[in-house]
Amino acid sequence: MSAPRPHPALPVRTREALEFLSLYHHETGLPGLRERQAEVYRTGGVTLGAAELTHGARVAWRNSTRCVGRLPWMTLDVRDLRHVTNPEEVFTHLLAHLREGFNGGRVLPTMSVFGPGVRVHNDQLIRYAGYRQPDGSVIGDPRNVALTDHLRRLGWAGGPGTRFDVLPLAIEGEGRVALFDLPADAVQEVVITHPTCPEIGALGLRWHALPVISNMTLEVAGQSFPCAPFNGWYLQTEIAARNLADRDRYDALPAVAAALGLDTTSRRSLWQDQALLELNVAVLDSFDRAGVRIADHHGVTAQFVHFEAQERRAGREVRGRWSWLIPPMSPATTPVWHRAYDDTEERPNFTVQAPAWQEARPGVCPFHS
Amino acid sequence: MSAPRPHPALPVRTREALEFLSLYHHETGLPGLRERQAEVYRTGGVTLGAAELTHGARVAWRNSTRCVGRLPWMTLDVRDLRHVTNPEEVFTHLLAHLREGFNGGRVLPTMSVFGPGVRVHNDQLIRYAGYRQPDGSVIGDPRNVALTDHLRRLGWAGGPGTRFDVLPLAIEGEGRVALFDLPADAVQEVVITHPTCPEIGALGLRWHALPVISNMTLEVAGQSFPCAPFNGWYLQTEIAARNLADRDRYDALPAVAAALGLDTTSRRSLWQDQALLELNVAVLDSFDRAGVRIADHHGVTAQFVHFEAQERRAGREVRGRWSWLIPPMSPATTPVWHRAYDDTEERPNFTVQAPAWQEARPGVCPFHS
Ligand code: HEM
Ligand code: HEM
Repeated sequence: MSAPRPHPALPVRTREALEFLSLYHHETGLPGLRERQAEVYRTGGVTLGAAELTHGARVAWRNSTRCVGRLPWMTLDVRDLRHVTNPEEVFTHLLAHLREGFNGGRVLPTMSVFGPGVRVHNDQLIRYAGYRQPDGSVIGDPRNVALTDHLRRLGWAGGPGTRFDVLPLAIEGEGRVALFDLPADAVQEVVITHPTCPEIGALGLRWHALPVISNMTLEVAGQSFPCAPFNGWYLQTEIAARNLADRDRYDALPAVAAALGLDTTSRRSLWQDQALLELNVAVLDSFDRAGVRIADHHGVTAQFVHFEAQERRAGREVRGRWSWLIPPMSPATTPVWHRAYDDTEERPNFTVQAPAWQEARPGVCPFHS
Repeated sequence: MSAPRPHPALPVRTREALEFLSLYHHETGLPGLRERQAEVYRTGGVTLGAAELTHGARVAWRNSTRCVGRLPWMTLDVRDLRHVTNPEEVFTHLLAHLREGFNGGRVLPTMSVFGPGVRVHNDQLIRYAGYRQPDGSVIGDPRNVALTDHLRRLGWAGGPGTRFDVLPLAIEGEGRVALFDLPADAVQEVVITHPTCPEIGALGLRWHALPVISNMTLEVAGQSFPCAPFNGWYLQTEIAARNLADRDRYDALPAVAAALGLDTTSRRSLWQDQALLELNVAVLDSFDRAGVRIADHHGVTAQFVHFEAQERRAGREVRGRWSWLIPPMSPATTPVWHRAYDDTEERPNFTVQAPAWQEARPGVCPFHS
């Protein structure tokens, strides 16, 4: 940034507003910075116009140190819904987000920014239930046991009990929490098959097409937007090397190995690595066949190197968290493994929230709404 | 440590001597700490006994934040050669180290500590030459081009010109540098074949059995031992996922993919991951068949978790560098991926040296020795 830093003695909110405005005018080349700054000095903050919000959200993505998919940050579609605070209306807009983001499979990076007091309790819009059984085991996604329990306490009757029951949304707004079932046509899913091993297809694995993160706060210009769900497209390792593979998630590697007829008696046969590889092949192939956009770890890391070069040309330093940028599969075959990153966090950005049901917040009682 | 920390105003060397002595007496339960401490206060440092040196070297291994193989740290065999400074004698002892460390394939973690003024210029005792060609390409190991050039400047005539020519050792001592060819029987190698794909065996890949690191300084009790080569056994990913696989090393994945008959036209077939997997299978299987001890990434990371528990029971905190501890293959299938480590460096430890030929050091001129 060429602009001087605002005085450090100013309140954080004011400083971030000033910093964002000079970033915005510097990067867009638009005139009028002086007037906007005067407004901040007068009021202590800023009311963002739609174009400013859009740019701020894009820069928040550009600054996301843990995201390896940042190359297309300029294409983020930002839906300005700051006037929407009513849970029913929020739900309607989320359905539209899911449809527009999915875009018939040609996934579009999309974000919806809602008004004050709105929260989605689900950490992603599409999540599979995790039902804890009396013997301690879990049917479904073990990661979502606490969320599932929370939704039941909110009044959800529970789903059919498959391993892939889509959870309803708990939407908070105007001081109350309401539950909404996602209609089937809002939840696009891909059935996982393998190009040459039908036994893998017979395992009944599937995953939803769209990752829509709904538990991060967009921090821009000194303002916090706690309900600003966003989606990109998936990277196949997220599904095949973590969600379906992790021992404390779907733990599918033993079943995949059995489907492949691998000898699992010795870890030195590398059967886990073989099963992992074929599950990744299966997920990529299944999404490709279904016409749903998905990145692979070789492509996305090559793109990340382009992103780094592009940022350098723009006079900006890329920040990154190496441990999040490397893929969880064959990482040393990707360029990111061989590079080092400064993990300083910049603003605008996204910050992680505590789960809504773990917070004690005045004025919102989920059990009496 | 229960002992009080020595006064911070003392010189570093004195402080580290005092700290090491109290660690040594605390961990071994041996009496006599008071007398040893008095000696340090009198002389400003300490002359380590053989048992103290051994324990210090073992603790240096235990403290190696980048080493995932630390569970057997107590078994390190330390050869006290602090009286040896003559290059010819150093070489003779290194040959004995190679034989004893290899131990007929049942590799023993071994370290040789030499006297003042000794340096081995090679960063590992066994290294393959890298011959830069007029067109810029390299025959052999591209990592060792600078070392190869250095050895030629020291008078090495060069080897037969294969991809796996073992480099001679440049041993510095008593103010001069001498070159020594490693006899064939000192360099155990394993020819890489694949259990089911003979075409991989036909690629002519091989690797040496023993990694003997010779460019790290052992720092113990305020003393530095710049020539203290040590070896463990290999972890197969070091060879198969880095040395033979990295683009800037042997870059063997395209050849392995061709041997496997893989379709390499699309990166989304994950042919790189498939080739990587089969190369790792090949290296493990080849070492196993040759009767040469080698770890696999599943086993060694499980052992690391045992090491962590063992250290916790001993009242010590394990330090670690996550980015070095995770394997470069299927890392999320190993427990280390899911853990976090504090990377503070403790003493005793090993520190990395600059290559001997990059240092300007008085009294040693490699070109006039
Ligand atoms: C366009 C395709 C995209 C791809 C392929 C992609 C890829 C990824 C991946 C692989 C991760 C790591 C996830 C994990 O390990 O849990 C990640 C994290 C992240 N991404 Fe992206 N991303 C994309 C779009 C986006 C968009 C549109 C945004 C925001 C506007 C975004 C912001 C983030 C953030 C904030 C994180 C960290 C999440 C956390 O802390 O849990 N990404 N991304
Ligand atoms: C017994 C079997 C051993 C195994 C399987 C093992 C494994 C490893 C591995 C996989 C690395 C990372 C190497 C890399 O990525 O370049 C490493 C690094 C290291 N190990 Fe071990 N190790 C063993 C024995 C030892 C011994 C005996 C010592 C010292 C006494 C030691 C000290 C170190 C140090 C200092 C590093 C960091 C090297 C550097 O910075 O380049 N290890 N080890």
